[in-house]
Amino acid sequence: MNLNITNQELMQVLGTAARAAARILALAPTAQKNDALNAMAAKIRRSAADILSENQRDLENARAKDLKGSFLDRLTLNEQRLNAIAKGLEDIAALPDPVGEVMTKWTRPNGLEISRVRVPIGVIGIIYESRPNVTADAGGLCLKSGNAAILRGGSDSFHSSSAIIACLQRGLDIAGLPRTAIQMVPNADRDCVGLMLEGLNGTIDLIVPRGGKSLVARVQQDARVPVFSHLEGICHVYVDKAADAEMARKIVLNAKMRRTGICGSAETILIDRAGAGRNLKPIIATLIDSGCEVRGDAETMTADPRVKPASEADWSTEYLDAIVSMKLVDGVGDAMEHITRYGSQHTDSIVTEDAATAERFLNELDSAIVLHNASTQFADGGEFGFGAEIGIATGKLHARGPVGVEQLTTFKYQVRGSGQTRP
Amino acid sequence: MNLNITNQELMQVLGTAARAAARILALAPTAQKNDALNAMAAKIRRSAADILSENQRDLENARAKDLKGSFLDRLTLNEQRLNAIAKGLEDIAALPDPVGEVMTKWTRPNGLEISRVRVPIGVIGIIYESRPNVTADAGGLCLKSGNAAILRGGSDSFHSSSAIIACLQRGLDIAGLPRTAIQMVPNADRDCVGLMLEGLNGTIDLIVPRGGKSLVARVQQDARVPVFSHLEGICHVYVDKAADAEMARKIVLNAKMRRTGICGSAETILIDRAGAGRNLKPIIATLIDSGCEVRGDAETMTADPRVKPASEADWSTEYLDAIVSMKLVDGVGDAMEHITRYGSQHTDSIVTEDAATAERFLNELDSAIVLHNASTQFADGGEFGFGAEIGIATGKLHARGPVGVEQLTTFKYQVRGSGQTRP
Repeated sequence: MNLNITNQELMQVLGTAARAAARILALAPTAQKNDALNAMAAKIRRSAADILSENQRDLENARAKDLKGSFLDRLTLNEQRLNAIAKGLEDIAALPDPVGEVMTKWTRPNGLEISRVRVPIGVIGIIYESRPNVTADAGGLCLKSGNAAILRGGSDSFHSSSAIIACLQRGLDIAGLPRTAIQMVPNADRDCVGLMLEGLNGTIDLIVPRGGKSLVARVQQDARVPVFSHLEGICHVYVDKAADAEMARKIVLNAKMRRTGICGSAETILIDRAGAGRNLKPIIATLIDSGCEVRGDAETMTADPRVKPASEADWSTEYLDAIVSMKLVDGVGDAMEHITRYGSQHTDSIVTEDAATAERFLNELDSAIVLHNASTQFADGGEFGFGAEIGIATGKLHARGPVGVEQLTTFKYQVRGSGQTRP
Repeated sequence: MNLNITNQELMQVLGTAARAAARILALAPTAQKNDALNAMAAKIRRSAADILSENQRDLENARAKDLKGSFLDRLTLNEQRLNAIAKGLEDIAALPDPVGEVMTKWTRPNGLEISRVRVPIGVIGIIYESRPNVTADAGGLCLKSGNAAILRGGSDSFHSSSAIIACLQRGLDIAGLPRTAIQMVPNADRDCVGLMLEGLNGTIDLIVPRGGKSLVARVQQDARVPVFSHLEGICHVYVDKAADAEMARKIVLNAKMRRTGICGSAETILIDRAGAGRNLKPIIATLIDSGCEVRGDAETMTADPRVKPASEADWSTEYLDAIVSMKLVDGVGDAMEHITRYGSQHTDSIVTEDAATAERFLNELDSAIVLHNASTQFADGGEFGFGAEIGIATGKLHARGPVGVEQLTTFKYQVRGSGQTRP
């Protein structure tokens, strides 16, 4: 693709084209956007053989570089995964269109009618690791919310992502929308990421990084445009003395072990000392019996010889694995102190039958998602009913928690008058 | 104040104290916050002599530095202005408390009840010029919205702002809230601004700059935390061919001349060529007769010999003065092209009796505020019914348009279950 232009020139071309496409997308009727999404899905299904063959190229290169199992797993496509990708686009088509929604409306004493109306953000840059499915998810969510997307996936998924992008752009074509509505950075040079983070001369409105802590940290450090970022999910389950013991055991097991690699997976279990006699041993046993390593404080270790010692670092570690840290605390206040000190304001849950204690936890703890008597693994756009998500935001501004199509919009004020001037 | 600690240490103390105060403020009852606001107002009224004498010190220093008239005017306090400051705090006390509001609530098929609840942002850093009134406004708005504030005003207002801060902190004392809820950077060193922009190790959640373009540009360039910024207001009035000529004349005059120094003041008037015969001469005459310099394109100059030539730079200039640029355009599409190219997405108005043309303008133009048959000078939190504003945001994320107490909050999700685990 190198036509002797610099990456700076190349990226500026992408940015300018995206801005122009965004103006068209912002006004595109819902049916046209949905037609494009459905056409993309159909094209992905028809192109399965091509996409899988491009994916093989990526996999061979990755194996030659000795990349590890979980990396290869995320990179791997097959018929079933491709079907899920296509189905994901159809699901996005079926979502309500957030654009144009009148969020609120009021009339001023002088007769001015003010409406707050949802509009797209504009151009969104997505920077992600070598996961080809993100290409379709991110492109589809941006399109539905009326935003142009510039996608920069991990270089190891370059061929797979390129094959998927071709299908997305074909879908845009079929629906009469500009192909530049979803663009992919056409080379794997790292400096293109830096250029995106600088905003391409005002043509990028928002950066969404999807990936590990080091990627997100770099984006946060270098970005000159707003970022929705998900730094980490150090999620807690606090088992209050007034917990139903069986419910607590089930919630802890699910919160930790249903899937250990997702951000809503619990990393620390806090047990109220006043209820430890009933709760501690069964919870430890359940976790260890299901294959989880438990790292605990001294009292936890006394309860079960299989518990390993927790170090100070464990309380702020996102394991993303079958490991959990566990500690006794003195009631909900102490639990909230621990969570505030070590947590990541992502998702935290209390198990208790005491309504007042539960309300205190829900009101006082400043996390994106606070739950009562439910597993932290519900921290998910699909589980919230958002249909699909581009990720979970751990920042506090604009989007917090699951980021679906609604969170990819902003608003403007429309003011309707009859000649009013300001006195 | 220099106790041989570095500014870095000093600012970190402020940040840590603000974070601790924010946790208390987030849970403070509405009545307690209102008590503090009313006590602050009373203390300012009682301390008028002291504040005015501190203000005299600032004014003498400023005169010695040969600072200019409009700067001195913004720096000057008097009995009437102090009363307005106190009244402003009482007005904020009278506003509804946004914190705790359930924004939306729904139940999932699995029985989980999800509520989106308004919560404070946390710690807000306000960086502003030498305008003592901003000290009270910003401190009051942050308090009402449950946020701790770190204020850094222009060094030329240091004594005035310190005297006002003392009153605000006394009000916090009286209401039993921590004095560290509203802190002022206790010296005028410039590097303290840089430290704030870096976020003081995660203790600042948001920076709000209030001031001219160079201040805001520096903040945007250097900030490592989210910023609500108001870059500039290049506001337009488009007079459509279907405009009521008399209404258009009045709206243009008000939009430009009611107050020329505010961000919602119109800087460019676009006249539909098809209606120029009726509208051009009267509008030019009204403006010039009211003391406004008109800079126009060739056709505008032909209409009135007093019109001066506009250069390319005029179309993107925020005069903040009795000067306006004026141009003929071919209908609403051409007008929107001009506004998109040269405007700042702040506030733009159309004058027309044609409802379809008006709706097109309101829907298609991507500005924070779009008006139909009303003056751009309504771009103001008070005029929107927000009670008070900390400024107008021209960014697109989180806050857009007037920033009142509601825009100084974010939200979290409270999820109430009965033992649900994720399948």
